[in-house]
Amino acid sequence: MPACILVSPVEASPQNGAVPTADRLHVVDINDPHISVLDLGVTRGDGIFEVLGAFDGRPHGVEPHLRRLATSAAMLDLPALDLEAIEAAIYKSIELSEPVPEGLIKVVVTRGIEGDGIATCWVIAMAGGGFQSERTEGISVAVLDRGYPHDIATRAPWLLAGAKTLSYAINKAVLREAARRGADDVLFVSSDGYVLEGPSSTLVAKFGNRIWTPSTALGILPGTTQDSVFRYFDSHGFATAQGIFRLEQLLKADALWLTSSVRLLAPIRQLDDDAIPVDHDLTDDINAFLKAREK
Amino acid sequence: MPACILVSPVEASPQNGAVPTADRLHVVDINDPHISVLDLGVTRGDGIFEVLGAFDGRPHGVEPHLRRLATSAAMLDLPALDLEAIEAAIYKSIELSEPVPEGLIKVVVTRGIEGDGIATCWVIAMAGGGFQSERTEGISVAVLDRGYPHDIATRAPWLLAGAKTLSYAINKAVLREAARRGADDVLFVSSDGYVLEGPSSTLVAKFGNRIWTPSTALGILPGTTQDSVFRYFDSHGFATAQGIFRLEQLLKADALWLTSSVRLLAPIRQLDDDAIPVDHDLTDDINAFLKAREK
Repeated sequence: MPACILVSPVEASPQNGAVPTADRLHVVDINDPHISVLDLGVTRGDGIFEVLGAFDGRPHGVEPHLRRLATSAAMLDLPALDLEAIEAAIYKSIELSEPVPEGLIKVVVTRGIEGDGIATCWVIAMAGGGFQSERTEGISVAVLDRGYPHDIATRAPWLLAGAKTLSYAINKAVLREAARRGADDVLFVSSDGYVLEGPSSTLVAKFGNRIWTPSTALGILPGTTQDSVFRYFDSHGFATAQGIFRLEQLLKADALWLTSSVRLLAPIRQLDDDAIPVDHDLTDDINAFLKAREK
Repeated sequence: MPACILVSPVEASPQNGAVPTADRLHVVDINDPHISVLDLGVTRGDGIFEVLGAFDGRPHGVEPHLRRLATSAAMLDLPALDLEAIEAAIYKSIELSEPVPEGLIKVVVTRGIEGDGIATCWVIAMAGGGFQSERTEGISVAVLDRGYPHDIATRAPWLLAGAKTLSYAINKAVLREAARRGADDVLFVSSDGYVLEGPSSTLVAKFGNRIWTPSTALGILPGTTQDSVFRYFDSHGFATAQGIFRLEQLLKADALWLTSSVRLLAPIRQLDDDAIPVDHDLTDDINAFLKAREK
């Protein structure tokens, strides 16, 4: 059974300052409704989230996920979050749920009920898994236009490019479009032809000894798992870097992966109509490294 | 006190077919939580909505709002909605709420709990008002880039341009950006300089005897209030049309308005740094016409 914890998430305020962290976590029954129909999270997708992988009871990337959550909060002008309370809820949610080899933890923060000014936050731990064949066999990926030019983040910061908001209807719609095209997942490109990210993943490309991921200057999310993958490559004699690549350059890669917290490293075996080489041994080795991480 | 009705919104199915409409409306206490933390409406902004104005107990534009809701549902691949049940809920929500001169009705449909395949829907009636000075004094409007080119709807339909989704974090963020610039509201332009819409309104421009609104081919919402405004102009000897205009052409208008269901017609008195003439008498006359509509 998944565990759900409601959190009072706003940084030490006159009210919250007096309340110990543990008393600001409320374990609730996930089968009961807990969200108001007036919450801006559900009426306007006005909030942020993170999804962490948890392997054998160890949540991965807690610190980078919390850091990214704080960045998203700032981009949405949400109040500063008490990351310590959210971190405590992450560990408590795992404690309270059945031990599983592969699980995931969702952290959601909304702007709360319109007019109240009090953020809503919850943390859920649940069983995951089922990605073994995508990790070993690879995935087919449809390339879809994200509609924005590559310099959108500096040109129009009010469009929140690079924040992980609850307004993910497009990220779900593109997966339905991919399915219509017979593909498993999506790689976004900018309207001017630069490679971006997946709707819930980060691209990693291998060109011989050089490993590359799209620059966060393109208005995309910093990948928490991609960062761990780079640590693997750094310690194995490869050169890692962020960069700005055009789509056609990707076809010269000798391996492409989509990385994400729960699925981990999924090799791309087909990109639209082009077959992409899959390095099975390397992929298996990195996935083993990712699963075995202490944190 | 606002009234809230939960609705079983999916068109006559083997299950629903046997259940009379009235039995599919459940009046609930708006102060209690009714939404699951697993509902895709709140975890991914994956759903749609409409907001109707209600004046002296008469909801306006029920039919066009329901039609637009059905269009949004189709664009998001949601199940076909039982519009009759939703319409019944709209009227019932008004019946159950305090009579007010100006109110509003919110209709929300989400994809429901992930994996269940059962849409969540609710209808809320609440008091509105407070827009008198915006209607008479006018508003200052900041022009902001929407990031997409003007042909986005045909070029990339998976971006859902023209659907009224719950993923409105950007529509809220641009209002905060407007406030930072000292403006009341926003007018979006395409990345290639064409005039689009407001984050919750439709633009109407007057050039002498010609009345113009941006074409829905630009991937913007068909304005339900704008449509009523066009009926006013049609019956007063003006020529009305949709069109595609560049921002600089707007500055030649002899009146500009943002139209929306609850605020009605708000004249733009300033567009970025440019003063725009306000036709007070005409604006008052149209707002009186809008308020007095039978439906």
